[in-house]
Amino acid sequence: MAPKPQPKKTPVALVGLGGVGVAIMQQLLSPPLSAKFRLVMIANSKKYLYHSKSTATDFDTSTCLNELNSKGEAVDLPAMIGALATHPDGPAIFIDSTATDTIPALYPTILQMNIHVVTPNKKGFSGDLSLAQNIINASYPKQGSLVYGESTVGAGLPILSTLRDLLETGDEIIKIEGVFSGTLSYIFNEFSKVEGGDVKFSEVVKIAKDKGYTEPDPRDDLSGTDVARKLTILTRLCSTQTPSLPYSLLPEGYASVPTSSLVAEALQGCKTKEEYVERLEEGDAEMSKLREEAFKEGKVVRYVGVIDAKTGKVEAKLEKYPFDHPFATALKGSDNIVSFHTKRYSPRPLIIQGAGAGADVTAMGVTVSAIPITFFTRMMS
Amino acid sequence: MAPKPQPKKTPVALVGLGGVGVAIMQQLLSPPLSAKFRLVMIANSKKYLYHSKSTATDFDTSTCLNELNSKGEAVDLPAMIGALATHPDGPAIFIDSTATDTIPALYPTILQMNIHVVTPNKKGFSGDLSLAQNIINASYPKQGSLVYGESTVGAGLPILSTLRDLLETGDEIIKIEGVFSGTLSYIFNEFSKVEGGDVKFSEVVKIAKDKGYTEPDPRDDLSGTDVARKLTILTRLCSTQTPSLPYSLLPEGYASVPTSSLVAEALQGCKTKEEYVERLEEGDAEMSKLREEAFKEGKVVRYVGVIDAKTGKVEAKLEKYPFDHPFATALKGSDNIVSFHTKRYSPRPLIIQGAGAGADVTAMGVTVSAIPITFFTRMMS
Ligand SMILES: NC(=O)c1ccc[n+]([C@@H]2O[C@H](COP(=O)([O-])OP(=O)(O)OC[C@H]3O[C@@H](n4cnc5c(N)ncnc54)[C@H](OP(=O)(O)O)[C@@H]3O)[C@@H](O)[C@H]2O)c1
Ligand SMILES: NC(=O)c1ccc[n+]([C@@H]2O[C@H](COP(=O)([O-])OP(=O)(O)OC[C@H]3O[C@@H](n4cnc5c(N)ncnc54)[C@H](OP(=O)(O)O)[C@@H]3O)[C@@H](O)[C@H]2O)c1
Repeated sequence: MAPKPQPKKTPVALVGLGGVGVAIMQQLLSPPLSAKFRLVMIANSKKYLYHSKSTATDFDTSTCLNELNSKGEAVDLPAMIGALATHPDGPAIFIDSTATDTIPALYPTILQMNIHVVTPNKKGFSGDLSLAQNIINASYPKQGSLVYGESTVGAGLPILSTLRDLLETGDEIIKIEGVFSGTLSYIFNEFSKVEGGDVKFSEVVKIAKDKGYTEPDPRDDLSGTDVARKLTILTRLCSTQTPSLPYSLLPEGYASVPTSSLVAEALQGCKTKEEYVERLEEGDAEMSKLREEAFKEGKVVRYVGVIDAKTGKVEAKLEKYPFDHPFATALKGSDNIVSFHTKRYSPRPLIIQGAGAGADVTAMGVTVSAIPITFFTRMMS
Repeated sequence: MAPKPQPKKTPVALVGLGGVGVAIMQQLLSPPLSAKFRLVMIANSKKYLYHSKSTATDFDTSTCLNELNSKGEAVDLPAMIGALATHPDGPAIFIDSTATDTIPALYPTILQMNIHVVTPNKKGFSGDLSLAQNIINASYPKQGSLVYGESTVGAGLPILSTLRDLLETGDEIIKIEGVFSGTLSYIFNEFSKVEGGDVKFSEVVKIAKDKGYTEPDPRDDLSGTDVARKLTILTRLCSTQTPSLPYSLLPEGYASVPTSSLVAEALQGCKTKEEYVERLEEGDAEMSKLREEAFKEGKVVRYVGVIDAKTGKVEAKLEKYPFDHPFATALKGSDNIVSFHTKRYSPRPLIIQGAGAGADVTAMGVTVSAIPITFFTRMMS
């Protein structure tokens, strides 16, 4: 008997080789995923490297970044996508692990060229309605290619997949509520505790910054924009089955979400991040007052995102939770927590909790959503 | 232009029409799932009804149970499976929503006849090694048909799918720990509270029984067997990537799992459930002592299942958790909670919490795992 032919591996291009991109590369090149995928292209902002029929040694995490620098060609997205579209083992997968706006603008084109897109980049799904809509129109079920942004919310936690499962089986969303920012989770878990305490808000923010939990400019976290982006992605997913949350609800995406900034009013004029960090204490009195008010009611303060399907309201804001609430005592460190209140999961919600950031878990959210795609390649080969 | 042909609907047979079966039927017959599936066969323990080319009115939740009784033919599994195997829109899906041992014994045959199997029935996966192994050998990736037991653990909660995602992307399991029984969750959440209290164990069990939370014979819950079955299913899934938990670890399935029974020693001889319930108080002193000991340490008592990949040990037992642990304050009602400690989710685990029983959520766990199958039918039609 002739040996059974090996099933084809799905070709993958990985654009963006920061912390997350390198972790994706490691997962793709190690078992068990290396049996399903063939990494054929890598790129950073300057160069790309393409090995159409790569073998295990072509892309090796320890050497290929050097090879990219020494032998790579200048980044040329049309040429890169063109090569991928004609790969003999396609349909291929394009992974965007950058934080750019420019690459998401190309998703519709990439999808139309019969290439699947998988990405942790929030930009394509959480900005202007028109781009998000164009991506949907260019992908399954309207057209044949798939687009997955699984790790854009909660990184590797099964947040978007669970929401999709609820909606696709006919459940009705009542409310989605969660701590979606790892940085803000850490800050409030330290600042507002069930056991009390009088640490200052500015001190906690400074510790978070020193530990590398915040962006270089802490205002990028404290503005709430990242939470508003995640709420946009969730809301738009809900819209498929939730008339009170139509796809047109957030025309400018995150910019349409009412978002409370934690940057104190007095500090909104700060010109530099250094000036801001220096003057952080000026916002302390207000935050302490909020914490004390909550404590008197037997509550803690958390920065949450809320999607309310009854009122059709989406908001990123500070909220108070009783001491025995899952968002209070049980939430620790910089974990995310999301609760889905639905017709079926009522009166108590379905809750998912865990690390919502970090290279390995974010990479996992990317690779896991690429697996069903390989399934097709194998069935069809 | 000729109109695009409608994609084929995947034919489904539903065997078992108890609480869960009827909820599965309702989900399959309503949007959005009715666009993907065509229910063609239903059966209870006595009769079956088959409409090969069913239309929306053939199976109507309000009338088809009467039609089954009046016009159904006597249950004849070989004939039923044979009809399904030759359905022109196949591969079809066989849903086993019974609690029998006899139907799981047929899964290997059904799978070999090119029919996918989806089930909430734990029996096929949690008993003797040989049946579980035969099911695996008859299904994908070894052969072409798929078998999904998603709602056998945690009902609609994404427990098995998350474990599969972690394993398939190369994460390493360190420990899985959870409250897997809704009944035992309710009993211990009421019996052992952070705020203290001196309610008797027997009183809590009687309230749970009166509320319909326990099986007719409460010993069926208190024996821990249901937890041992779920641990068997999880352990066997882990074994694909976890050398310390080989597939052969639990040769007799649940019966190989060391399981603490909550039926007091003095009561293990009770002949009837009535005698048992009458004498329940005889076990109170021991349970109160455990609770008081835990309380002095700042802990509560919970009945948990633990899979420890470091030691290769699987156990169902009573355990103590500190007041600020997610299994203590934040766990409410009859919710399940499961924590996955892995190489990536470390030091804090990935946690999933919510209703782990109930007809609608269990049905959802069944229908959701059937969706990827319809995807193939549609792509290939
Ligand atoms: N880190 C997390 O925990 C986390 C969690 C959820 C989602 N995400 C998302 O994951 C994505 C990647 O995150 P990261 O932390 O890995 O980012 P990063 O460290 O900033 O890396 C970004 C990478 O993208 C490359 N790049 C930038 N512009 C490019 C262009 N025009 N063409 C090709 N490559 C370009 C950069 O190349 P150079 O090296 O040449 O500059 C760099 O390799 C982001 O969208 C982020 O929001 C991250
Ligand atoms: N309920 C939950 O919350 C939950 C959660 C997780 C998993 N599950 C599992 O889901 C399954 C169904 O649960 P359920 O509560 O719906 O059970 P149920 O109410 O006891 O219903 C069982 C159904 O199976 C039928 N049946 C029994 N033997 C049969 C046979 N030999 N051939 C064909 N049909 C047969 C029965 O028919 P008759 O009507 O003729 O007796 C009945 O319709 C069980 O395996 C259970 O463990 C349930």
